Amino acid sequence: MHPIELRSDNCAGVAPEIMNALAEANVGSALAYGGDDHTAHLRDLVREVFEHPSAEVFPVISGTAANSLGLSAICPPWGSVLCHETAHILRNECGATSMFGGGAVMRGLAGHDFKLQPTSLEVAFAATNWGDPHHSQPSAVSLTCPTDMGTVYSVAEVQSLAAAAAGPGLRMHLDGARVANAIVALGCAPAELLTHAGVHVFSLGATKNGALSTDAIVCLDPAVSEQLLYRVKRAGHVASKMRFQSAQLQAYLTDGLWLRLARQANDAMAALAAGLCELGAQFVVQPQANILFANVGAPAAASLAATGLLFYEMNDGLIRLVTSFQTTEADVQEILRRAAPVLTATN
Amino acid sequence: MHPIELRSDNCAGVAPEIMNALAEANVGSALAYGGDDHTAHLRDLVREVFEHPSAEVFPVISGTAANSLGLSAICPPWGSVLCHETAHILRNECGATSMFGGGAVMRGLAGHDFKLQPTSLEVAFAATNWGDPHHSQPSAVSLTCPTDMGTVYSVAEVQSLAAAAAGPGLRMHLDGARVANAIVALGCAPAELLTHAGVHVFSLGATKNGALSTDAIVCLDPAVSEQLLYRVKRAGHVASKMRFQSAQLQAYLTDGLWLRLARQANDAMAALAAGLCELGAQFVVQPQANILFANVGAPAAASLAATGLLFYEMNDGLIRLVTSFQTTEADVQEILRRAAPVLTATN
Amino acid sequence: MHPIELRSDNCAGVAPEIMNALAEANVGSALAYGGDDHTAHLRDLVREVFEHPSAEVFPVISGTAANSLGLSAICPPWGSVLCHETAHILRNECGATSMFGGGAVMRGLAGHDFKLQPTSLEVAFAATNWGDPHHSQPSAVSLTCPTDMGTVYSVAEVQSLAAAAAGPGLRMHLDGARVANAIVALGCAPAELLTHAGVHVFSLGATKNGALSTDAIVCLDPAVSEQLLYRVKRAGHVASKMRFQSAQLQAYLTDGLWLRLARQANDAMAALAAGLCELGAQFVVQPQANILFANVGAPAAASLAATGLLFYEMNDGLIRLVTSFQTTEADVQEILRRAAPVLTATN
Amino acid sequence: MHPIELRSDNCAGVAPEIMNALAEANVGSALAYGGDDHTAHLRDLVREVFEHPSAEVFPVISGTAANSLGLSAICPPWGSVLCHETAHILRNECGATSMFGGGAVMRGLAGHDFKLQPTSLEVAFAATNWGDPHHSQPSAVSLTCPTDMGTVYSVAEVQSLAAAAAGPGLRMHLDGARVANAIVALGCAPAELLTHAGVHVFSLGATKNGALSTDAIVCLDPAVSEQLLYRVKRAGHVASKMRFQSAQLQAYLTDGLWLRLARQANDAMAALAAGLCELGAQFVVQPQANILFANVGAPAAASLAATGLLFYEMNDGLIRLVTSFQTTEADVQEILRRAAPVLTATN
Repeated sequence: MHPIELRSDNCAGVAPEIMNALAEANVGSALAYGGDDHTAHLRDLVREVFEHPSAEVFPVISGTAANSLGLSAICPPWGSVLCHETAHILRNECGATSMFGGGAVMRGLAGHDFKLQPTSLEVAFAATNWGDPHHSQPSAVSLTCPTDMGTVYSVAEVQSLAAAAAGPGLRMHLDGARVANAIVALGCAPAELLTHAGVHVFSLGATKNGALSTDAIVCLDPAVSEQLLYRVKRAGHVASKMRFQSAQLQAYLTDGLWLRLARQANDAMAALAAGLCELGAQFVVQPQANILFANVGAPAAASLAATGLLFYEMNDGLIRLVTSFQTTEADVQEILRRAAPVLTATN
Repeated sequence: MHPIELRSDNCAGVAPEIMNALAEANVGSALAYGGDDHTAHLRDLVREVFEHPSAEVFPVISGTAANSLGLSAICPPWGSVLCHETAHILRNECGATSMFGGGAVMRGLAGHDFKLQPTSLEVAFAATNWGDPHHSQPSAVSLTCPTDMGTVYSVAEVQSLAAAAAGPGLRMHLDGARVANAIVALGCAPAELLTHAGVHVFSLGATKNGALSTDAIVCLDPAVSEQLLYRVKRAGHVASKMRFQSAQLQAYLTDGLWLRLARQANDAMAALAAGLCELGAQFVVQPQANILFANVGAPAAASLAATGLLFYEMNDGLIRLVTSFQTTEADVQEILRRAAPVLTATN
Repeated sequence: MHPIELRSDNCAGVAPEIMNALAEANVGSALAYGGDDHTAHLRDLVREVFEHPSAEVFPVISGTAANSLGLSAICPPWGSVLCHETAHILRNECGATSMFGGGAVMRGLAGHDFKLQPTSLEVAFAATNWGDPHHSQPSAVSLTCPTDMGTVYSVAEVQSLAAAAAGPGLRMHLDGARVANAIVALGCAPAELLTHAGVHVFSLGATKNGALSTDAIVCLDPAVSEQLLYRVKRAGHVASKMRFQSAQLQAYLTDGLWLRLARQANDAMAALAAGLCELGAQFVVQPQANILFANVGAPAAASLAATGLLFYEMNDGLIRLVTSFQTTEADVQEILRRAAPVLTATN
Repeated sequence: MHPIELRSDNCAGVAPEIMNALAEANVGSALAYGGDDHTAHLRDLVREVFEHPSAEVFPVISGTAANSLGLSAICPPWGSVLCHETAHILRNECGATSMFGGGAVMRGLAGHDFKLQPTSLEVAFAATNWGDPHHSQPSAVSLTCPTDMGTVYSVAEVQSLAAAAAGPGLRMHLDGARVANAIVALGCAPAELLTHAGVHVFSLGATKNGALSTDAIVCLDPAVSEQLLYRVKRAGHVASKMRFQSAQLQAYLTDGLWLRLARQANDAMAALAAGLCELGAQFVVQPQANILFANVGAPAAASLAATGLLFYEMNDGLIRLVTSFQTTEADVQEILRRAAPVLTATN
């Protein structure tokens, strides 16, 4: 049977609208390193979409770059970044935040549904000797939204975390590798979840949602942006032909393309989850965006793989399914058709 | 009059062959982070083109990334990188090599024609207290080829520098942001200038020569490659959709496209230089690739700019002209037509 | 009542034998930066005491320096250092290991009695994607011995951890800020716990045990020592008048002075613990060296402090008592005399 | 003949007043990590001597630590430190400033008498693309005073450099490894050369002038001091028994001991230089403090060494002579007695 991609939204290709934007940008010559018109227009667009008059945008090639460079500008070398113990920055970026942060440390905290709660921060604060140089000083909070497990912080949750962080002066970072999926899931305006909820710097993911290796740091604090100008450059993350990144991000943020693409992925996941649930599958947590973890047992996992479904088995029998902007309704029906006999036999 | 681009080869667009490669790669899904077929094929191609059975290739977004990450893997944190005092890594990368190098330092040396000579290294070696921990230990030599001033190291020159470096155990790095232009200028095989001349790691530039923000580190030493795997990732320089970088580099290295594109730029420069010379222009040094520096005086520089020629005036009356794969013979004729009255009046 | 010091062995002064050694070293002139005779003799002595023919010793001013520099030489920047979740390097050194390690991360693991067990490592190994550059690669194990909670790894425990670490190629580090107290507690030869048990680099604490701000890195691997030469210097940890550090360490390791001093502290603690136990005090864990944590309740803690005992109250009613080489039998009797009415009333 | 020490003031021992201070501090117990009385008194004393109400002092073990940590707090990672091309930080500290500076670079500038002049800075500023992230941004100026070649910046020179630096917002650092010798040479008040001349952070050398491996960072900017608290700790440069460093520095700064010791060294050098001059020796530059470089030729250098004089021959026949607080008048007479036949024969 033909393979169906559920390994990662990173395995998807580039959306046609983005390919068109690349072709349109490839006309004539343009100043390098962001001196081009596309980059200027992108800045305006970002300010409009995220409702912040002095927001700055720094296109980069990866979420790791966006997260670690963004964090390095809001956490001093002797600081710590507080994050959930399952955060992508802690588990999947090979220490990038500590490297760009000049030795800053990440501190994984417990929290329900793979999310931080204000109590997570309170516990960390209580265990801190503030002002004592023996102890890395908590300086930033980083939220992954959606989490790598598929849950989504509500606007109210981000607000209350930002309030808790603000007490002792921590800055708020949001790892938005899939932030479009979160915004669609919440049905809120982008600025509600980010600017107005108290986020200072965030990673604007686009690659997993139809762009060609282009994410961005969006910074809502001008003093931090000034630092990022240099930090991004000396990390080798300023593309000379930046116009091609900016053109993509322009198309992405124009007329809601990014949300349309994310909705496709989220809707596919909702249909898939509903179908699998009916078949008796047990989820680690109810999916809110485009990622699902299900405990199906090792034999069922093997049987599902044998039907041509492409996915990762994390541990014994725990499988991860990820939909993307390219996952169609037909794909979902076909996945469920193949899964039915396997799961019915198991459950 | 219509503008003609001579500011930088970075201002050029993307070659049609590269755009086609992107479109062709955008079919179906593929494993992320280099697990795709394009990346596998690229590795084979690099091994063939550079005639090294265990060469590895790491696509990155910029020359700064390629240089600084490559150097960080061959120079320890307490080491120094020897380079020409006008080297791009020293002057134009905001300290990236010191940052990724964990505090390694760069040491600019004097040398004729903006190139290092074996005597440059000998002078540096003589001034070094080897084994004395008060002194950064020279650990790598980095050549920029072509230099930022437009001169090109000959194969024999690279060989003799590699021999001088090998004595006290230094590794050889080559900043090849425009290496295709050098190879075309020399008329040699790629492996002659690199692999066989004693280079261990080099930056393979493609962006300035028709690619879409894609350069690469090529590493000819397996032990160094093993380090680079991690160094590149934690720097955020591993694109999840690497297939689109690899597809570009595949097209670039296939059937000599890279050399064809570079020849266009070099030929345009040769014709331009010949014409300007006839008009009496004084060059800082005879151009060998696609970059020319001419002292025309401030009034002539202003007059040339007024004709619609786009170029940088570095200092008073010193102008830099750069051709690219998009500079046509007609462009050159038009440039000379505009320059003639200005320079004739001046000289 | 006169104060009795139980806050930290860091609060003690300098042993008379060490003061004498300083005075004796202060004769004539001597080469700086370790070129002196005392440093040469210290090297020989270290090789003899730790039974390793090519051991090297690097005097430094603090345990933080000894730990973080030692670890930086055995853990690559993309690596992780595995340690107990209560390790001093993780909790009390402000991220020094991540800083000197160029972004290396520390990973706190669970384990009984505040010590790592082989199963702690196995759990960490099982959760690691070996060779996957998204994941910091476990590269070193660091044991604190005695732990900050006062427990001591047995020789067999160090051996079994070293064996577990050796499987996937990790190097062994031991934070020996109080290692003399551990050796005395175990009654073993120094080399048994260190050299022969499989430790590659360790911090030799002396400051807490009678020296004047002088600890040392002892390295049992010549390739690592070569790195340390440079790493220690560029960290500013090479004293120009090194003879005064070396003379202290010479005296410290000669004729068992270090063990005599540590025995004084351990014996005082043993007597103190026995007495407190009789008075009904509850210990967090049975002390094996010179540190004791007791839950006495907040009112008793206040009452004890009111008697002139100097100690830290960590949390509500949890007190830490530390003896040193300066704690006498008379001190212990006096402490118990003061504690008796307080604890009897409480328990 | 008995050896006479002229290799380095680092080869000298510890002044008796300092040894007494250590003995006096070794009474009773005291809080660790700077919580002791000696450290509190030292802070007051520093504020008085350097005439700055919020000066802070951070004792460290070496000049390298003092310089590199001090600079790391006033130069961002993307910045450059401007210094003379012969500066100790550039030539003799193994890249410490780049390491603690997170990749900041040092830029060696030309200047007469081994000192920077305002024109040195102007040349550097003119070559800088301010605000362009391709270029490390000049952020701090570091003066070595006295220079490693024995010359001394006058108060007016420091003032004019501080004024030139202030224009584009650079901070002033002074490497005062031998600052007492400079103050004595100038006959000024300490605060004149430092606080009032516009220095923000300086290294207060004591080790070369009679202390036992104790220098200090003195910081005249409270915002920078706040950073240093953490930077010094995580570098492992906070001694737990800080009272012994503070007691030394207290004694050193009390009743002008530091200036008395430095005067001994300077006077010895003045007498030595006068005598050698009479014997026809050629100096590289007229010595102002306690260091002298003389070109005597290789044969004379060998003959002088054969008389038991201990000194370094830098290059062929270029010898360096350094006096210390332990160099007596009798030593000087004896040196000249031995040198007379050698130099008379040569000149």
